[in-house]
Amino acid sequence: MQVTMQSIGTVHTEARDLPRHWSVSDVKGTLEIDAEYAQGLTGIQPGEEIVVIFSFHESPEFKSKSLQQRPPHMNGEKKGVFRTCSPYRPNPVGLSVVEVLAVHGNRIDVRGIDMREGTPILDIKPHVKKEEASAA
Amino acid sequence: MQVTMQSIGTVHTEARDLPRHWSVSDVKGTLEIDAEYAQGLTGIQPGEEIVVIFSFHESPEFKSKSLQQRPPHMNGEKKGVFRTCSPYRPNPVGLSVVEVLAVHGNRIDVRGIDMREGTPILDIKPHVKKEEASAA
Repeated sequence: MQVTMQSIGTVHTEARDLPRHWSVSDVKGTLEIDAEYAQGLTGIQPGEEIVVIFSFHESPEFKSKSLQQRPPHMNGEKKGVFRTCSPYRPNPVGLSVVEVLAVHGNRIDVRGIDMREGTPILDIKPHVKKEEASAA
Repeated sequence: MQVTMQSIGTVHTEARDLPRHWSVSDVKGTLEIDAEYAQGLTGIQPGEEIVVIFSFHESPEFKSKSLQQRPPHMNGEKKGVFRTCSPYRPNPVGLSVVEVLAVHGNRIDVRGIDMREGTPILDIKPHVKKEEASAA
């Protein structure tokens, strides 16, 4: 089954030397949401964490020989691509959890960026943890 | 920017009366990954949590009047769609965190299902928390 999505916005950051993963990132940036979707941000507050789903738009086309990869920080151990956060995967979809610093209009200033400047955003969701399900 | 994805597998569950969210779900099911991607599961272990990214394949086409919604469990408060986990969103992409019970070949038995029988899976990732970044 095929699913076609349209970006709802774009990641902006001045950082060029990005950390390998959001969980080890303090990099700041801005999520610029297309004006037509700005109303969809209502209720997002500074201090909250949000999940950003995005496209790895610079990844080359996936080839099956990469179903197993050796992530550089895993002592060269071979892992299935679905056991890794590699940007090189069958569907080029990425996920980062970032902290909201400020919301103004259609722009969200955030900390925790590991996406490149210009990354197309596909969705934003609240970051729900099992312990605080009522926030969902 | 447009992104086209192909499902990599399908959610199976016998449950028909599903909880509203994975964070309050004990429902069991199976993620059946297409055989051509089975190698990509290498290293996924029982007891781990995984993130499943899927398509809300039964959601109707999004209309801009739904940029704000009133989630039933939020006292009727109006929220921007990106502040909610509503299945009715600009890109019909869902995210659930489930617990791995067993892996056999191209099938992962899991607990925590909130997706309907037949839901197309787009990606599986490790569930990384900020505190344990080395698992990424």
